[in-house]
Amino acid sequence: MAESEKPLAERLLAGDKRALARAISLVENDDPQGWELVRDVYPHTGGAAVLGFTGPPGVGKSTLLGALTKLERERERSVAVLSIDPSSPFTQGALLGDRIRLSDHFLDPGVFIRSMANRGALGGLSEAALQAALLMDASGRDVILLETVGVGQADVDIIDHADTVVLVLMPGSGDSIQALKAGVMEIPDVIVVNKADHPLTETMVREIKGVLALGPRADWEIPIVKTEATRGEGVEELADRMSAHRQYIERAGTLMERRRRNLMNEVLAIATLRMRRELEASVNEDTDVKELLDRVVSRELDPASAASSILERGAGDGWRR
Amino acid sequence: MAESEKPLAERLLAGDKRALARAISLVENDDPQGWELVRDVYPHTGGAAVLGFTGPPGVGKSTLLGALTKLERERERSVAVLSIDPSSPFTQGALLGDRIRLSDHFLDPGVFIRSMANRGALGGLSEAALQAALLMDASGRDVILLETVGVGQADVDIIDHADTVVLVLMPGSGDSIQALKAGVMEIPDVIVVNKADHPLTETMVREIKGVLALGPRADWEIPIVKTEATRGEGVEELADRMSAHRQYIERAGTLMERRRRNLMNEVLAIATLRMRRELEASVNEDTDVKELLDRVVSRELDPASAASSILERGAGDGWRR
Repeated sequence: MAESEKPLAERLLAGDKRALARAISLVENDDPQGWELVRDVYPHTGGAAVLGFTGPPGVGKSTLLGALTKLERERERSVAVLSIDPSSPFTQGALLGDRIRLSDHFLDPGVFIRSMANRGALGGLSEAALQAALLMDASGRDVILLETVGVGQADVDIIDHADTVVLVLMPGSGDSIQALKAGVMEIPDVIVVNKADHPLTETMVREIKGVLALGPRADWEIPIVKTEATRGEGVEELADRMSAHRQYIERAGTLMERRRRNLMNEVLAIATLRMRRELEASVNEDTDVKELLDRVVSRELDPASAASSILERGAGDGWRR
Repeated sequence: MAESEKPLAERLLAGDKRALARAISLVENDDPQGWELVRDVYPHTGGAAVLGFTGPPGVGKSTLLGALTKLERERERSVAVLSIDPSSPFTQGALLGDRIRLSDHFLDPGVFIRSMANRGALGGLSEAALQAALLMDASGRDVILLETVGVGQADVDIIDHADTVVLVLMPGSGDSIQALKAGVMEIPDVIVVNKADHPLTETMVREIKGVLALGPRADWEIPIVKTEATRGEGVEELADRMSAHRQYIERAGTLMERRRRNLMNEVLAIATLRMRRELEASVNEDTDVKELLDRVVSRELDPASAASSILERGAGDGWRR
C-alpha cells in the first residue's frame, strides 16, 4: 500500500509532516474527522516538551523562535512551532509577516511550522490551538514551541498549556513592566529581554528585577536572559535556562500537577464553548429567544432574567453534542 | 416611615448613595436579592452616558477620572465612577492605591465611587461590574465613568458596554502602540496621551497617528487629546471630544445599535457563566466526572471526548438555575 493510502492517524504517528498539516487543518475547520483523530492519537501524547512564548508584538518573538529552532536542530531534536495570531481581521498580516523569519527551516523535515489565526472551531482559538498542539505532540516532535501575542492579563490561554512559559520583552516595554507590577500580567517562568544591543537594556533589566522582588518568594528564581535574536546571541543561555526550569518542575513534581490542572481546565473550556455555541444558535433560530432579547433592549427585561429564561428553555432539549 | 425603612429599590431610584452602595454589595456577593433588585430597577436604566476608560497601569487613569469628575460637577452633572481591578490577589493594592486620587470627591453627594476586584458573582468580573453599572444608571447618575486596566486584546469586557471608549496612554506606552498596530487591541473612540509634559509626547502622538492611518477610514475621526491630568490640563478638551463622539453616535444611530449588540452579548455571557459554574460544581461533586478527568490526565481519554461525555450526562438534570 502506498504511503499516502495509509490511515491519516498512522502516518501522523509515524511523524509524516504532510499528515500533520492535514490533521491540523481538519481540527481548524471543525471537521469531525479532526476531533476523531485527536481522540485516536491522544494516548501517544505527553512526550514533547512544550515551551510557550508570549510578549507584546514587535519584540522579536518570531526571530527568537527561529534561533531556538536552529539550536534544537543542531542538538538533533525535532521541532514544531505553533504561532497563534489573535489580531483583528482588518490588520491581518501584520503578525503573519513575521513568519518569514522562520522560513530558513521550511525545507527541514525535522521542523514543522504552523500559524493559526483567530477563528477557531468552536470560536475558541485556544481550544483549536490545543488540539493542534496535541497532534504535534503525537507526531513525535521532541519540542513544541507555542507563540502568542500577549500584552496583558488575558493572553490567549494556550500559553497555560506550556510546561515552561517565557515572557519576551525589549527595551521600551514599559506597559508590560507596569502590567507585571500591578499584577494584571502573570509572572512567567523565564523572562527574555530581546534586542539587547539597545542602550536602555540594563535599565529594563533593573526594572524587571524590581518587579520580581515585589513578588512572593519561590523555589524557582526567575532568570532574566538578554538576547539579540537576529545574531543568535544569548539563545544558548536561554535554552539552558529553559531546560533548567524543566528539570526543576520535574524534580519538584509540579510538571504533572501543572498538566493535570491544565487538562481539567481544557475539558471545562471545551464543554463551555460547546454550550455557548448551542446558545448562539438558539438566538439565531428560536423566535422566542429573539423576542426575549428584544425585551432586554427595550429595557423591559434585565439581562440576567433573560439568561435564566433561556437556560430554562434549553434544559429540556439542550446541550447534547 | 423613616428613609432607611423604605424598600431598597425605592431609595436607589431616588438617588440615595448608601442604597446604591448596599445594592452593589448584594450583586458583588451574588446575593439573590441583588439580582432581583437589578431586575426591578432595570426599566429605569439607559439614561446615563456611559464612558469607558482603558489603558495600561500607571498612565494616570485615576487622576484623569478625578479631573473629569471635578469638571462634570462644575457642570452640575452627577457622576458615578466604577473602577474595575483585575490584578492578581498577591499584588492587590497596587491599583487600589490609585483610588486615593479620587478622594477629593468622597464627601460630595453628587459623586459615587466604587472599586470592584477580581472575584465576581459568577466568576465573571465583567458581569458583576455590568450589574453594578446598571444600578448606578438606575440611581439617576448623569454620567458613569468605567475604568479598567487594559494592555491588550482582552480587556475586561465591561468596556464594551460604554457608549464611548477612551484609551489612555502616556509617553513610553510602546507596547500598547504595537498592540494597536498589530490589531490585537481594539481601536477606541478617543485616545488620550496623559503626562503630556514629557519630552517624548510629540513622538508618541506621531506614532499614534501613524497607527490610526493604517486603519479603515470611518466617519468618526479619532481625536488624540494631550492631557496633564494632575494639573487639569487638557481635561476640558477631552470632555468636549467625548461629547462630540456621543453626538456623533446619536446622530448616526449607532448608539442604539451598540447598546443592542452589547446587551445581547451580555445575556449570552451570563448564561454561559451560569452553565460553566454548574459544570465546575459537577466536577467537584460528581465522582463519575472526576473519573473522566482522571482518564484524561492518564492520556486514555482526550479532552474533547471527556467534554462530550460530561455534556451528555448534564443534559438530563442540567442547567436550570
